[in-house]
Amino acid sequence: MDFLNTYLLYLIPVLGLIGILFMIIKSSWVSSQPAGDESMTTLAGYIADGAMAFLRAEWKILSYFVIIAGILLAWSGTTVATSSPVIAISFFIGAFLSAFAGYLGMRIATKSNVRTTQAAKTSLAQALKVSFTGGTVMGLGVAGLAIIGLGSLFIVFYSIYVKNVAGADVNGEAMAKALDVLAGFSLGAESIALFARVGGGIYTKAADVGADLVGKVEAGIPEDDVRNPATIADNVGDNVGDVAGMGADLFGSYVATMLATMVLGREIVSHDNMGGIAPVLLPMVIAGLGLIFSIVGASLVRIKDENSSVQAALNVGNWASIVLTAIATYFVVQWMLPADTMHLTRDLDANGVLKEGSLVFTKNGVFGSILVGLVVGTLMSIITEYYTAMGKRPVLSIIRQSSTGHATNIIGGLAIGMESTVLPILVLAAGIYGSYFFAGLYGVAIAAAGMMATTAMQLAIDAFGPIADNAGGIAEMSQLPPEVRHRTDNLDAVGNTTAATGKGFAIASAALTSLALFAAFVGVAGIEHIDIYKANVLAGLFVGGMIPFIFSALCISAVGRAAMAMVEEVRRQFREIPGIMEYKAKPEYEKCVAISTQASIREMVAPGLIALITPVVIGFVFGPEVLGGLLAGVTVSGVLMGIFQSNAGGAWDNAKKSFEKGVEINGEMHFKKSDPHKASVTGDTVGDPFKDTSGPSMNILIKLMSIVSLVIAPHLNHAVNNSARLQKQIKLQSMTTHVIKVEKKA
Amino acid sequence: MDFLNTYLLYLIPVLGLIGILFMIIKSSWVSSQPAGDESMTTLAGYIADGAMAFLRAEWKILSYFVIIAGILLAWSGTTVATSSPVIAISFFIGAFLSAFAGYLGMRIATKSNVRTTQAAKTSLAQALKVSFTGGTVMGLGVAGLAIIGLGSLFIVFYSIYVKNVAGADVNGEAMAKALDVLAGFSLGAESIALFARVGGGIYTKAADVGADLVGKVEAGIPEDDVRNPATIADNVGDNVGDVAGMGADLFGSYVATMLATMVLGREIVSHDNMGGIAPVLLPMVIAGLGLIFSIVGASLVRIKDENSSVQAALNVGNWASIVLTAIATYFVVQWMLPADTMHLTRDLDANGVLKEGSLVFTKNGVFGSILVGLVVGTLMSIITEYYTAMGKRPVLSIIRQSSTGHATNIIGGLAIGMESTVLPILVLAAGIYGSYFFAGLYGVAIAAAGMMATTAMQLAIDAFGPIADNAGGIAEMSQLPPEVRHRTDNLDAVGNTTAATGKGFAIASAALTSLALFAAFVGVAGIEHIDIYKANVLAGLFVGGMIPFIFSALCISAVGRAAMAMVEEVRRQFREIPGIMEYKAKPEYEKCVAISTQASIREMVAPGLIALITPVVIGFVFGPEVLGGLLAGVTVSGVLMGIFQSNAGGAWDNAKKSFEKGVEINGEMHFKKSDPHKASVTGDTVGDPFKDTSGPSMNILIKLMSIVSLVIAPHLNHAVNNSARLQKQIKLQSMTTHVIKVEKKA
Repeated sequence: MDFLNTYLLYLIPVLGLIGILFMIIKSSWVSSQPAGDESMTTLAGYIADGAMAFLRAEWKILSYFVIIAGILLAWSGTTVATSSPVIAISFFIGAFLSAFAGYLGMRIATKSNVRTTQAAKTSLAQALKVSFTGGTVMGLGVAGLAIIGLGSLFIVFYSIYVKNVAGADVNGEAMAKALDVLAGFSLGAESIALFARVGGGIYTKAADVGADLVGKVEAGIPEDDVRNPATIADNVGDNVGDVAGMGADLFGSYVATMLATMVLGREIVSHDNMGGIAPVLLPMVIAGLGLIFSIVGASLVRIKDENSSVQAALNVGNWASIVLTAIATYFVVQWMLPADTMHLTRDLDANGVLKEGSLVFTKNGVFGSILVGLVVGTLMSIITEYYTAMGKRPVLSIIRQSSTGHATNIIGGLAIGMESTVLPILVLAAGIYGSYFFAGLYGVAIAAAGMMATTAMQLAIDAFGPIADNAGGIAEMSQLPPEVRHRTDNLDAVGNTTAATGKGFAIASAALTSLALFAAFVGVAGIEHIDIYKANVLAGLFVGGMIPFIFSALCISAVGRAAMAMVEEVRRQFREIPGIMEYKAKPEYEKCVAISTQASIREMVAPGLIALITPVVIGFVFGPEVLGGLLAGVTVSGVLMGIFQSNAGGAWDNAKKSFEKGVEINGEMHFKKSDPHKASVTGDTVGDPFKDTSGPSMNILIKLMSIVSLVIAPHLNHAVNNSARLQKQIKLQSMTTHVIKVEKKA
Repeated sequence: MDFLNTYLLYLIPVLGLIGILFMIIKSSWVSSQPAGDESMTTLAGYIADGAMAFLRAEWKILSYFVIIAGILLAWSGTTVATSSPVIAISFFIGAFLSAFAGYLGMRIATKSNVRTTQAAKTSLAQALKVSFTGGTVMGLGVAGLAIIGLGSLFIVFYSIYVKNVAGADVNGEAMAKALDVLAGFSLGAESIALFARVGGGIYTKAADVGADLVGKVEAGIPEDDVRNPATIADNVGDNVGDVAGMGADLFGSYVATMLATMVLGREIVSHDNMGGIAPVLLPMVIAGLGLIFSIVGASLVRIKDENSSVQAALNVGNWASIVLTAIATYFVVQWMLPADTMHLTRDLDANGVLKEGSLVFTKNGVFGSILVGLVVGTLMSIITEYYTAMGKRPVLSIIRQSSTGHATNIIGGLAIGMESTVLPILVLAAGIYGSYFFAGLYGVAIAAAGMMATTAMQLAIDAFGPIADNAGGIAEMSQLPPEVRHRTDNLDAVGNTTAATGKGFAIASAALTSLALFAAFVGVAGIEHIDIYKANVLAGLFVGGMIPFIFSALCISAVGRAAMAMVEEVRRQFREIPGIMEYKAKPEYEKCVAISTQASIREMVAPGLIALITPVVIGFVFGPEVLGGLLAGVTVSGVLMGIFQSNAGGAWDNAKKSFEKGVEINGEMHFKKSDPHKASVTGDTVGDPFKDTSGPSMNILIKLMSIVSLVIAPHLNHAVNNSARLQKQIKLQSMTTHVIKVEKKA
């Protein structure tokens, strides 16, 4: 045990390496699967090329951004004692690993899709195996890279600034500096994540809406028809939006959660066997355990035959990884944390006596908070599923309101989306309350860490959906026999449900992560309160609340503009290239891919800059407390808008899908092409940018703004201290009538 | 001057009486105008009867509520020293006057409408005179009753609790008690306002959407056609929603603003010539002046001939009243407030020395805050007009997006609505910052009071729109010659613009009023901070932010359900009553009126109870600070959702209206009945409940929840004090190691 106590720090990246090892094994297995006939591989090649073209274009723009931001960070690191120019190096590594994780996911997804199609020729079990293994590669890659990156950098910075410095205090400024420099890693990761999520979201929906409006509605050809010039762009979109975007989002959350918990853990006075840094290490250890048990859980996902339930197989794997992680976490917490109670450094007075009303907590309290996080994540997923699933009240109410036309369908969906915020917010509020009750703000952060522990498994389940969707697209475009499409449709339907629950999980994790970052920010910025009774803080709260609205507006209208450009290009090709409709001429797929790529790259800049620059401006002009008000406003409004938009979009989508099997309204059956179905298509089209562009972007918006604030916090603290020193001088001079003395009692 | 100093208090209700006197004169003038032929008076009679039927049904339900709430208030008033059972009497009077103001407005509106139609047979000038005089009656009635009610009750309570009590302090508990009892008046007014606004909003849109969906879309008959069974309900709706609902809303804001400023004024130590109560009297005096200058402004609204601009005439009257009030306010502030600076009681230490960092302000500062309020109100109106006016970028972008179908029209409108929150929030944040800078939180409140001063004029302009709208409906139903309809359409078009700017004004005033109430609440509840760094306060912020979403969802879906019931009734009548279409049989108008009435009364209960009960539960279970977090969340989210929904609805409406004269999209002209026009009708129908039900309800939601909190604040304060006393005891017992001494300096 002594050995472990000393070397636990170095074991963390090893857990990440184990994840990467399994990723490589699973990845080679996928690559070794048959990829089908020439027509299939050609189409898959177009998709892979389109996806890479997007990534290259994105990287080009982002490299400018990363270099400029890195230089600014390096410069700012020289200005205060608790930071260092080294923060720029963390930032570069974070940005690079985030981009690399996205690349890995995209590569495997564009390999798995066609191999899933080929596997679907033989059996459902084999098709699930290929597509889910593809998803697992993505999940293990993201989680493994995050743990290796964060764990190794922490070892380096801890050694430089704390371990090898005489008299350095693990609860003091030395550790604060190590963690501040580490925050650059999270900033890099989340910045790339924002652009990947927003850019990918705009790409996928511009292509999807554009392809549908001309292909399905005007030309009357089915979805994924090889004659539709936008069909390749549509399939590329599934990869850049749902795979790379989602992967970058969760990579960012995963890293940010660990970091925020570590920053809060620094303040905890813990008499543990690791020299007092157990609360700092704990989130990374939990993440490492979660990664290992995700590998175990993933190995349990399999079905016997055509009639087995794919959803049940995924549930077994998911629950196995969560329960095993929870059990292991219990023992790790018991072992790592001290036998006596813990408290915060700031709760000590000048004589080292614990102040009255101080928060003290125990290791069981910490484990309690972790359990709260797991419960919150699970409940959020269940609620999200209820609001977006077929056959449940919300979707049925939208179907019923489709019978009186487009407008009532829209009104119904908007009302459901707004209503769907109630339970998640109550769960979240109870979660904040509960985890705080058990272990203070560290409890809120560690709850998020617990929830994010099995990110690898969550991502595997999430990424399997778009792979199956793509596999179906390739089957349709290659005109394969109906049983193949039937099998991929089966997987795709499950993928739709997991996509919805995954969104519930993502928003819950983003909310808790933001709150943890918010708490970390307040500590680092050296402010005592964020008092909304002050007019300027209240003004900050208002401005913060508005940002998710303008961010959503920019995302939604970007999709609208890009989709209209796509519509015009597809119309032009149908008009100017004769023979497309008779399969005699090949459409110019690459032109549609180029439109989506350029539009998404161009349109992601404005929302991205809002998220990055606002906290800097507000923080430096109005001070840290107003910035705290702004962050609270962004977080509350962002979570609400995220849930509202994602759930409205999901419910509209499934209301439309319900017409495929026929729905009964007032005793009459309605099918596809009926008037109510047309109304439901309108709702689905409105919901597309809601659920896949603006809604999920809210997650990254709130996290990124919190991380930026955390990174600039030492500078704001510096400014505050200077002004406080000044005020103190004034105070001493004006204290002419009374003196305050503190004396030892007799 | 000495006389005035002493008797100013008694002059305030006299100003209100002058308003009522002018109202009676103008009302008799309207009644004396010719009401047209028998067909017109019959139709007008149906409308008036329908409106009264709604009011009676509403009053019946509300009388139960008022009695129960009054008893609870009376009981609660016995439990703490700073309240009294008398608060129930204030509450009854407030509720009664609010309902009575709505009744007066509705009576005059249902008289003015047919007389405007008759006047439109002769000239536009005469039609404007009749309809605007009708609006003025409403405005003067609302403002006059509010000032008489609040002013007289203040005289009574001030005499009982302060003036005639030996040693009572105008800055102390005695005055706090007087104002707490007075708060019951505001609570009564705002409660009735909520139900009137929500019920009226549901009524008008259920009738409107229902009438349109079957009449215009299915049967192909024009709007306001006498053959449509829902047409009377539709015209009744204009009165109960746009007249009575708007009137109750502004009555509530007007009273709440004055009250909040008075509560904050109590804390101001002011060495004025009125015994220190000048800051308390000031808001009522400003309101009284605004009322008088509204009478002056209204008398300037007139046009010469058919080609004169109605908008310009309204602007002259509006600006005259605002500028005259601002000038008069300057002199009143100079006269009433003391020559030396003012500060807050709580900024004094135990020795009566002003603490460091205390806020002191001057009378010029107070006037500065009033100017800030006027500027904020004006800017909000201008921005709202920009986002909803024909021919400006926002509406044009929706028109362009109508060319690709229903879905893109909806996406465009939603994006515009979200975008339209940016400038108003920045203006509001700057307004909070600016008015606080000039005179602290009293400045924020007095800014709202300045903005609301000319409420009578604002309401006159607002109420004239629906009167003109009704006049047009009667002209259409009575098949009068086209020039009559042409004149009423001219007035109606101006009414649409004033409705939009009125909404901007209403939301701005609600926001500032809520903040003033919020500040008043914090003072009365005896808390020092509302610290969102505390987990429980943050949880409160989240739950508060969610309430406007569920409130909107309830309002929107209520309209959806009621409209569907209306659709079915109209379809039934067309089917079962032969000869309606050939004008041979009269439709059963009263059945449609009954459906709207019952639906709106039934559906207003749930949202109303949420607004009333939530603050009570949160306050008593979690304490005043969490309730403060909840209020901040409700206010921020409510203002955002209010602006978003109102502006999206207004922009959709005018995008649709633009097709009447034809619009150019990509070089092609489109008119009514074209495909883009059909898409724009979908947007307008979605926007209807947004802009007339849920959007404007946000105003009352945020105000009512703040008032409820203010009324329960003394009870929460009581609970806090008890718990603080307990903690103090514990503190003293545990203070074993150190003592703190404060000594006089040598």
